[in-house]
Amino acid sequence: MSSDLQTENLPIGVVGLGLMGTSIIVSLLAAGHPVIAIAPLPADEAGFESRLMAQLEACREAGILTREPNDYRAMISISEDYTALRNCTLVQECVIEKVAVKAQVYQQITAVVGAETVISSNTSAIPITELQQLVACPERFLGIHWAEPAFATRFLEITCGEKTNPRHAQVIYNMAHLWGKEPTLIKKDIRGFITNRLMYAVYREALFLVGQGLTTLADADKAFRYDAGSWMTLMGLFKRMDYEGLEDHLQTLNSLFPQLSNAAEVPEPMQEMVERHARGTQSRQGLYSYTAESASAWERSFAEFNKAIFHLARRYPGAPAVNPLP
Amino acid sequence: MSSDLQTENLPIGVVGLGLMGTSIIVSLLAAGHPVIAIAPLPADEAGFESRLMAQLEACREAGILTREPNDYRAMISISEDYTALRNCTLVQECVIEKVAVKAQVYQQITAVVGAETVISSNTSAIPITELQQLVACPERFLGIHWAEPAFATRFLEITCGEKTNPRHAQVIYNMAHLWGKEPTLIKKDIRGFITNRLMYAVYREALFLVGQGLTTLADADKAFRYDAGSWMTLMGLFKRMDYEGLEDHLQTLNSLFPQLSNAAEVPEPMQEMVERHARGTQSRQGLYSYTAESASAWERSFAEFNKAIFHLARRYPGAPAVNPLP
Repeated sequence: MSSDLQTENLPIGVVGLGLMGTSIIVSLLAAGHPVIAIAPLPADEAGFESRLMAQLEACREAGILTREPNDYRAMISISEDYTALRNCTLVQECVIEKVAVKAQVYQQITAVVGAETVISSNTSAIPITELQQLVACPERFLGIHWAEPAFATRFLEITCGEKTNPRHAQVIYNMAHLWGKEPTLIKKDIRGFITNRLMYAVYREALFLVGQGLTTLADADKAFRYDAGSWMTLMGLFKRMDYEGLEDHLQTLNSLFPQLSNAAEVPEPMQEMVERHARGTQSRQGLYSYTAESASAWERSFAEFNKAIFHLARRYPGAPAVNPLP
Repeated sequence: MSSDLQTENLPIGVVGLGLMGTSIIVSLLAAGHPVIAIAPLPADEAGFESRLMAQLEACREAGILTREPNDYRAMISISEDYTALRNCTLVQECVIEKVAVKAQVYQQITAVVGAETVISSNTSAIPITELQQLVACPERFLGIHWAEPAFATRFLEITCGEKTNPRHAQVIYNMAHLWGKEPTLIKKDIRGFITNRLMYAVYREALFLVGQGLTTLADADKAFRYDAGSWMTLMGLFKRMDYEGLEDHLQTLNSLFPQLSNAAEVPEPMQEMVERHARGTQSRQGLYSYTAESASAWERSFAEFNKAIFHLARRYPGAPAVNPLP
């Protein structure tokens, strides 16, 4: 069974042509899908072409493509008109995290596609169950959450809302393997998905420690970069625990749990920082300061690093353990 | 100023020749220090020689050594007699995480060294302030917490207890750069150090999600391996936030904090698991099951991966941002 054969006849719609949307499109193209790209904002369309070609070129260099970038470019139709989506069996939404905007997008999608077309959101902030209420025939709605850049990461989270038909989730789960992913399937809708939820537990604790003057942002960064980072891509979380020995871990878990931050609110300095329009690398002032040069060097660094770590993870694929519990 | 010159005349004592002790010794040897190795248990000494040579060989392959493994071997004196430590200006303790055992070790060290000799613990479970009370002249006691394997990781945490003289911490901090580390200096004793504390915030949340049937151990592992793992070694934590944009993060922080686990106790299944003597990879039954073959393949995988990620991090050294806040 050729995966190419399967995907070639399966056009997928993507609504939202920002950074994330572009890299999702590239990932789908590389897997062989024709893509119907909808630009809800004319502004999206502006930068899209150059982003797309740069990402396709990056894919080619990484050895992910089997044809030339231009051949893939020919597999996209771009439109501002939602009726172009009418033959898609899957439409992926990746517009900004605003419920009102998404509601409007869903309305326009459902107006043109059949009731069996699966509609998915890339949201990382809004529960699927909540978004599902905005969609006619909600049983065909689910979350497909991609990691950035979509074409060069293996991770993909598929999340059901309360009303999602699990059959649809299973179809997408199977299809995700054709996209070169290691998907996870979350049968119940949880607030924040797995990675985000785990990472925000880290951020809560880190912001607490920084707020107490016990450490600095820079030292927390060093800790994750050089310590956790040195095993995570191989071991994940619980295989690490097994490797280090459960007994020691249990002792530490018992002594640390009562000491961890239980804060329900984001610390003041972080709130202030954002209010002062410190937006991050893009505006050159975030938690760190950047110059125009350092910000673009950082961008290039990440693009290169990302390729390297993708290949590294590919060289160390299956962990040899069997029968994970539970 | 040659770093070789400085370290050559500076013998360092290491008490405890287990897995961690051995790799700390290798790290110190590679930096040029003569090492006085004390085996508090004859059992430690048994496997030490082969562990040591295997690790020196790994260092040589990784390009960390400037001489042959046997030359470094000649720089160690092994003894069960603590008086061998008398000329050391730094003694690193890395015995098991039991206060009573450590107390006895400190007593034997302080009986033979001068009052200015810095004594450090590699503990990841017991507060430095608590251990410090067991040491004569407690102002020269501090934590030096290494990441495994010590010779091929850049991370090192230096932690002061309440009574530690910051001057000693600064000397060790400076010296750690000669060991090829990116040290962090924690001026106040915190429960669990930085990485551990942050990682246990992750484990708390992950065990909560698994306990609720919302995800599985294997999916949490995939999430960290393929998603968080794809940027962590480059970006740490807060540079990632900057890169993704602070505004979106703030929104998600606000919605997620109240949802995160605040559990003070380790979930029942984990307690049970350890009580049933599931110790991890070493006993072939942990959170996952292993065969003899898969456990040793895993060991080899980690050794190789570790070399690769060490070099990868070296290729992407300084993040280009300046002036981290606060």
